[in-house]
Amino acid sequence: MNNIEAALAEIDRAVGALGARGIQIFTNVAGKPLSDAEFRPIFRSMVRHDLPVWVHPIRGPQFADYSGEQASEDEIWFTFGWPYETTACMTRLIFSGIFDELPALKIITHHMGGMIPYFAGRIDLGFRQIFFGAPDLNPVAREHGLKKSPLEYFKMLYADTALNGEPNATRCGHAFFGTASCLFATDAPFDAEQGRGLIANTIRAVELLDISAAERARIFSGNARALLKL
Amino acid sequence: MNNIEAALAEIDRAVGALGARGIQIFTNVAGKPLSDAEFRPIFRSMVRHDLPVWVHPIRGPQFADYSGEQASEDEIWFTFGWPYETTACMTRLIFSGIFDELPALKIITHHMGGMIPYFAGRIDLGFRQIFFGAPDLNPVAREHGLKKSPLEYFKMLYADTALNGEPNATRCGHAFFGTASCLFATDAPFDAEQGRGLIANTIRAVELLDISAAERARIFSGNARALLKL
Repeated sequence: MNNIEAALAEIDRAVGALGARGIQIFTNVAGKPLSDAEFRPIFRSMVRHDLPVWVHPIRGPQFADYSGEQASEDEIWFTFGWPYETTACMTRLIFSGIFDELPALKIITHHMGGMIPYFAGRIDLGFRQIFFGAPDLNPVAREHGLKKSPLEYFKMLYADTALNGEPNATRCGHAFFGTASCLFATDAPFDAEQGRGLIANTIRAVELLDISAAERARIFSGNARALLKL
Repeated sequence: MNNIEAALAEIDRAVGALGARGIQIFTNVAGKPLSDAEFRPIFRSMVRHDLPVWVHPIRGPQFADYSGEQASEDEIWFTFGWPYETTACMTRLIFSGIFDELPALKIITHHMGGMIPYFAGRIDLGFRQIFFGAPDLNPVAREHGLKKSPLEYFKMLYADTALNGEPNATRCGHAFFGTASCLFATDAPFDAEQGRGLIANTIRAVELLDISAAERARIFSGNARALLKL
């Protein structure tokens, strides 16, 4: 990602010659946001290929949680910092107008959208909106020239089900994104049982969703087949 | 909070002479975490008074989201940074052993527990636990000498319902904390209608919970009456 021309050539080679069904990138590039104009050609390329972009969070303990400290303690950088990264990344991409330029862009967010579903109500009410806006007027979105309300763009994202099998959270994420935008995934093999616990628990969480068998099949495989053209 | 002796005297005056039914503090004190030993007397005092501690997040745009930047953009510091602050604060308090020392401590978290309910599955599986632990062994918790699993302490927290009336998120938060630990609250007057929208939508979100009328009454008022001894 520090050589966009080379990255674009590798996308074409991976997808065209090797059959890759999408790319994965990280939430920041050496501390720079993916919304920077220099990275936009990557997203344009994936729209041309009509294949998805997986975005995985990346952050280490050097990202301190308190201004008086030098490092994040108690694994906060991982447990909560990673979903925060995903959320900040999506917010920056959305306010940069990426979905107005590329409405067909398919981004798959890890950990079922990070903080987006649980804080959908906060997305719908920005800080300056409270004091200088109106219920349907977000001043930041207006300054950025966005065509829709911010929340509508967040709903254009796809989400994997990697919430470690927590049924109530999975239900919340599914309610936000909808069946059509949820794809089964786990963090396997990253648990203390080589991934067996994550896989079993995440299958169970999807099975506990109050949806039809046909909808469940879309989350388990149908959506991925369609999105990846398998 | 930069003069603990004076703060303790003010707690005693506010509660004893003026009838205050709890105190509110912020998630950090000029960049220092509330888990620092210097702040522990505040919590001990509130256990002696048997009254709750409200913890409100505080963070400004100077808390950058990317290491290559100087400020948080697009109001991320507010929309998602505040619930992150709450979550980091609770994590640090819990890993500092506060609930082993003060099992009767009553902390009310804002925004229905921040990131805790949606990422309960991540709390249950720490970073080093994946590689050096076991399904029921979190090495960080063991190093801190905690008596229980981290998730059990997170469930000892109370939560307000201030999720801007998002029904699915409210359901997720309620499922995590349980009726006994949920207290009705909103961020009123902080919306673009002097709080009318927040109040109406949050009442509706609680009414949409799939619980009995008696349980709903506890969330709306009964739990607060008991906790605040009204």
